[in-house]
Amino acid sequence: MHHASDILFTLFIVFVAAQIGGEIAQRLKLPGVVGEIAAGCVIGPSLLGWISPEQTAIGTPLDVLAEIGVVLLLFSVGLETRLEDLKKVGKVAFLVGVLGVLVPFGMGSVWAHGSGFDWDKSLFVAAAFVATSAGITARVLQELNALQRVESKVILGAAVIDDILAMLLLGVVVSMQGGGGFNLSHLLMVLAGAIGFIAVVGLGGAQVMRWNSSWLEKPLAPHSPLMIVLALCLGLAYLSTLFGLAAIIGAFLAGMIASETRQQHTLEQQTMPLLALLTPFFFVVTGSKIDLHELANTDALLMLAAVTAIAIVSKLAGGWLGSLSLGKRSATIIGFGMVPRGEVGVVIASLGLAAGVFNNRIYAIIVAMSLLTAMVTPPVLAWLLRRSPTDDAMPTDE
Amino acid sequence: MHHASDILFTLFIVFVAAQIGGEIAQRLKLPGVVGEIAAGCVIGPSLLGWISPEQTAIGTPLDVLAEIGVVLLLFSVGLETRLEDLKKVGKVAFLVGVLGVLVPFGMGSVWAHGSGFDWDKSLFVAAAFVATSAGITARVLQELNALQRVESKVILGAAVIDDILAMLLLGVVVSMQGGGGFNLSHLLMVLAGAIGFIAVVGLGGAQVMRWNSSWLEKPLAPHSPLMIVLALCLGLAYLSTLFGLAAIIGAFLAGMIASETRQQHTLEQQTMPLLALLTPFFFVVTGSKIDLHELANTDALLMLAAVTAIAIVSKLAGGWLGSLSLGKRSATIIGFGMVPRGEVGVVIASLGLAAGVFNNRIYAIIVAMSLLTAMVTPPVLAWLLRRSPTDDAMPTDE
Repeated sequence: MHHASDILFTLFIVFVAAQIGGEIAQRLKLPGVVGEIAAGCVIGPSLLGWISPEQTAIGTPLDVLAEIGVVLLLFSVGLETRLEDLKKVGKVAFLVGVLGVLVPFGMGSVWAHGSGFDWDKSLFVAAAFVATSAGITARVLQELNALQRVESKVILGAAVIDDILAMLLLGVVVSMQGGGGFNLSHLLMVLAGAIGFIAVVGLGGAQVMRWNSSWLEKPLAPHSPLMIVLALCLGLAYLSTLFGLAAIIGAFLAGMIASETRQQHTLEQQTMPLLALLTPFFFVVTGSKIDLHELANTDALLMLAAVTAIAIVSKLAGGWLGSLSLGKRSATIIGFGMVPRGEVGVVIASLGLAAGVFNNRIYAIIVAMSLLTAMVTPPVLAWLLRRSPTDDAMPTDE
Repeated sequence: MHHASDILFTLFIVFVAAQIGGEIAQRLKLPGVVGEIAAGCVIGPSLLGWISPEQTAIGTPLDVLAEIGVVLLLFSVGLETRLEDLKKVGKVAFLVGVLGVLVPFGMGSVWAHGSGFDWDKSLFVAAAFVATSAGITARVLQELNALQRVESKVILGAAVIDDILAMLLLGVVVSMQGGGGFNLSHLLMVLAGAIGFIAVVGLGGAQVMRWNSSWLEKPLAPHSPLMIVLALCLGLAYLSTLFGLAAIIGAFLAGMIASETRQQHTLEQQTMPLLALLTPFFFVVTGSKIDLHELANTDALLMLAAVTAIAIVSKLAGGWLGSLSLGKRSATIIGFGMVPRGEVGVVIASLGLAAGVFNNRIYAIIVAMSLLTAMVTPPVLAWLLRRSPTDDAMPTDE
């Protein structure tokens, strides 16, 4: 049984680092997630080197645990989200999603071209400015008990739309590299597939559960409702990747469907320990990918500052414009809620590096920007939410 | 985000197979764990081939999830085990542990020598007859709500002693291969280290928690007691491998320490969803390792029948003799409770294959024997426990 010892040590280190980081952050009145990401940066290759890049590469146990962690996180967020509430904010969420993609993409490509990239490469760089990481915002909203606020519903709805658009955009820019041009009818089919998947699963699933959820208790296994919805969560997370969407979209839908059952409250309580064990792996692994060495010179830092500023301002502007109908305060909260890029930016940067479009420096900068936006947002969002009491008609947990 | 799709599909398949297998088993009045192991055999390489041996090799995500699953399982068993109760059965457990190792080792080596192995190789084969898999018995006892019975305490205590002795025995037989002889003083040091570790951690940890456990609630994080004991669980699981013990021994000690806290009841409830998500991976992965093809001929089947019969009879006899002071009924339950070899036999067989001591057939037979004992035991144990009402002085859950 000795083979297990190395990985057990790593799991122990990651888990404890997350707890210590989270505790320090909370003592400093910051959201715990900031501390978890920072802990990942500290124990990662840049500083202590207790976890190596090889240990968090795609398909490794740590990567898979991180993936399960973020899938469960979005599942639990879905569990607190009723379809009816999302429908109420549908129009605003759509506007926020669309503008939150177009503005950063436009500003990003102009900046990249201005920095010396060809237009087709600039569009690839710009794609890394686009995708919102729902995971980080969701965690902050959850920590602050703010998931029932109207701003949260808009952010979550917009994140789904954002993910669809980002996927399409990535498809376009990848197909444009190498001068191949792109295939519009193929892209339209992909778009139709993704929207169809979300609509059928989201609406159909919620309808089934609202109609009757007593069958969840038919199996003899104790806690059978939890087992069935966890299976649904894994299944939809997988299915959504087949439609070109992020796995977390499927997990969110599974949670939203489960929120319509009459076992919803029990499920919420039972999901909590799963999050407690597994989400730290996601945030620590995310933090460990910040490579401080590539950024240890003035040029790189200046470029990083510019990129991060553009990323924040453009997303904030897009989200703010899209949700202005809810008032300036809410629009500011929503705008900031869309800012974190997190792991999605990291994935796009990795694709760019693999495709030879990015060099090591722009790669490190894009990754650092993604994570900086993820670290800057939580305290700002927490501050904005605490300052702005809920004044909407929806019931809150507070 | 597409890289995640393959592993998500595998996780989904494994999880759903476990649920279906468990449900069928329970409908047939068998313990759910039998169905989960059988499900692993069905979706494994022998039949459907949905999961390959490469996907469950050491260090793969599935292997790590299985390891976390069995670690959490033994943690939760520890959480229902008070040190005081274990002390009461100390002498009997010691006898059961020692005889449960010596009798199978003796009978196993005689059989192996009779089948044509050299004496030193025979001792290696015999070592695979020795180690009890606490995981499988613990799960059955848990499913039947029988963890508070005196027989369960004896089995769990004996499993700890059994693990120490099996580790020593393996050390001896491995060092004897190649004619090197063995180093007695080294082995005595290893033994002292293992016993010291268990004594210091078990007694000391329980003492600390009994004295004061309110500090578990000092951190600001919600559910901080759960987070701290999970960290303890991972840490002790790792530490116990450093002392040459199975990781599950450390996890069991962590649970036993946590059972002395006044948050014990909450912790028990919060651990349940973790088990529900993660232990199926352990049992399905275990089942997937049964290679039915190597056994598809009369000779191999006859040999398997002989090996399995010896494995069951020798362990039953050892456990029965050791616990006869509790009465014949209890002794029978304890004897059967020690029968499953499960993953420990598989690990020893793998070592034998790697060392060139075992050929493919004897390897397949030892693995199949380990798993057969694991599959035969749960229904027998369930039947014995239901038939025999508790008549001891300890409080029960039933």
